[in-house]
Amino acid sequence: MSATDMITLSPEQADELARTVLQAWGLAPDHASAVAHTMVSGERDGCTSHGLYRLLVAANSVERGVVVPDAVPEVSEPASALVRVDGKGGFAQLPFAQGLPLLVAKAKAHGIAAMALNNVVHFAALWPEVEALAEQGLVGLAFTPSHAWVAPEGGTKPVFGTNPLAFGWPRPDGQAPFVFDFATSAVARGEIELHRRAGKAIPDTWGYDAQGNPSTDAEAVLDGAMRTFGAHKGAALAALVELIAGPLIGDMTSAESLAADEGRGGAPLGGELVIAIDPAGFLGSGVADHLRRAEAMFAAIEGQGARLPGSRRLAARAVSDVQGLRIPAKLYQDIMDVLERGKQRG
Amino acid sequence: MSATDMITLSPEQADELARTVLQAWGLAPDHASAVAHTMVSGERDGCTSHGLYRLLVAANSVERGVVVPDAVPEVSEPASALVRVDGKGGFAQLPFAQGLPLLVAKAKAHGIAAMALNNVVHFAALWPEVEALAEQGLVGLAFTPSHAWVAPEGGTKPVFGTNPLAFGWPRPDGQAPFVFDFATSAVARGEIELHRRAGKAIPDTWGYDAQGNPSTDAEAVLDGAMRTFGAHKGAALAALVELIAGPLIGDMTSAESLAADEGRGGAPLGGELVIAIDPAGFLGSGVADHLRRAEAMFAAIEGQGARLPGSRRLAARAVSDVQGLRIPAKLYQDIMDVLERGKQRG
Repeated sequence: MSATDMITLSPEQADELARTVLQAWGLAPDHASAVAHTMVSGERDGCTSHGLYRLLVAANSVERGVVVPDAVPEVSEPASALVRVDGKGGFAQLPFAQGLPLLVAKAKAHGIAAMALNNVVHFAALWPEVEALAEQGLVGLAFTPSHAWVAPEGGTKPVFGTNPLAFGWPRPDGQAPFVFDFATSAVARGEIELHRRAGKAIPDTWGYDAQGNPSTDAEAVLDGAMRTFGAHKGAALAALVELIAGPLIGDMTSAESLAADEGRGGAPLGGELVIAIDPAGFLGSGVADHLRRAEAMFAAIEGQGARLPGSRRLAARAVSDVQGLRIPAKLYQDIMDVLERGKQRG
Repeated sequence: MSATDMITLSPEQADELARTVLQAWGLAPDHASAVAHTMVSGERDGCTSHGLYRLLVAANSVERGVVVPDAVPEVSEPASALVRVDGKGGFAQLPFAQGLPLLVAKAKAHGIAAMALNNVVHFAALWPEVEALAEQGLVGLAFTPSHAWVAPEGGTKPVFGTNPLAFGWPRPDGQAPFVFDFATSAVARGEIELHRRAGKAIPDTWGYDAQGNPSTDAEAVLDGAMRTFGAHKGAALAALVELIAGPLIGDMTSAESLAADEGRGGAPLGGELVIAIDPAGFLGSGVADHLRRAEAMFAAIEGQGARLPGSRRLAARAVSDVQGLRIPAKLYQDIMDVLERGKQRG
């Protein structure tokens, strides 16, 4: 097997593989299905860092005791337009899936609604969650803190997580929704991790070493602090995410999540806030007309050769739909090894 | 009178002056009060570009017929957690003030609520609006498109407005709320305008000329396209603002607003979306405890010598509270001239 060998899986095979691995590591079947769905979606959309590779991360989280693999989520309604799902320390995907119908119903009933996921382990991209809302015709926003790895603008000590935010917008005529998802850090933490593994220098604008100096040493920045994107504006957004998906929903800040991890190196534990808005709330029977006006904006972007946010994912999805999911043979082997370890452990 | 001469006004004098000028230009008294309050707040907080200087802009908008000075806003409830205020072509401040009590009541009743301002002329900063929500203990988000002046990342033709977003968070113990407000363009349009007037070059990262080349010529960029902040992430946010404060609420995109202006050079006409979340919705009786956890995050930022977003405004406010509002004598003279023209016109 050469380093460039690839294995091709159908989505069904990938899903089966992911569920098998996750169940071997003790995930309850409903958790395994929800998590597998997210990983296979990521792999399909070319987000390899959030694809099947995350099986290794999930197994690691179970092994280190940072996740409750068979947690039973509890859905409640703290107010008429609010949903809360207590994930009881399990992965975030099942709590999201269990709360989604109620969130959708509340958004349609009241025009806007919000859902807090509490006490969940979040290791995945946020876009599948807002895409799920947009596929039901709703506008979605999602936010989650992570671990305190990112310095505020003007400082050099970590306060914020990578604090992603995601946005989904329904598009007419059977088109995939307009969806984007980005970290408020200058780059993904995984990007710095990849440079560290490859022994490559990073740009000195990505972060600071523990002494507070800009550094090109990936390991020094991982031990120091990352920077936000977009200077003080990105830092302001990182603070927004920290507040509305932390204290506002009674869940941990990134600093608290990192402290709770106690050095185990697990995925962040904490909360997520999802906001859903029903276009029919403000637009009534005019939804189709006004969605067409949004299409004119998309056309003005693409018409000048610029890319719509999220379009790379959709292009990768189209390729995957034809070719299947192609993953490195080495990754496939690693997954098989993790499966074996899970079975022996069980 | 030298170029550096300053005039000092008390807040009450400034408010009286602003109301007098606005009423001379035909604003109904309730519009004049609401607009004056915003301008005086801006001046007090050191946002001179959104302070009393805007009296000249407001008069210009009346003169060019882009605003209805005595519009009577209409408040409605399109859904149980939604408020709509049709501004009927008037300035945005009065519609906001008239819808605010209902938005607050709905957020408290349902946990989250949203308000659309439609058909309003928006020339001011957004922070006074989220600050008003935070002063009532609510978390606030506000968004508004403007005129199509900003290119998408990867393109060079204007699609987006400067598309600001604002965020407000209540703080305990009588502290002023945590509030920020920033444009998703790389810099404020007024900044480029100032360079143009001064005949100064701008950095070539601020925008493109009409041929699509990066330019250091302020006038060329004003005639071409500005850039967003934060590359593709800032552009994604600009699209978000465009969509949720445009088509989602049945109002104009920045391109439509610019087209509707028909070259009159007026302030943007269109919509604004305000979202209010009641911390008590998710936190019940735990609000005070969780707000304290947010304070720990603020302390971690300020404790390392970094500035909290919005802190410059609050520092300026503290100075104004002691010294009064100090404005250039030249501006005061310009305002007097505008007052005179308004009176002659009436």
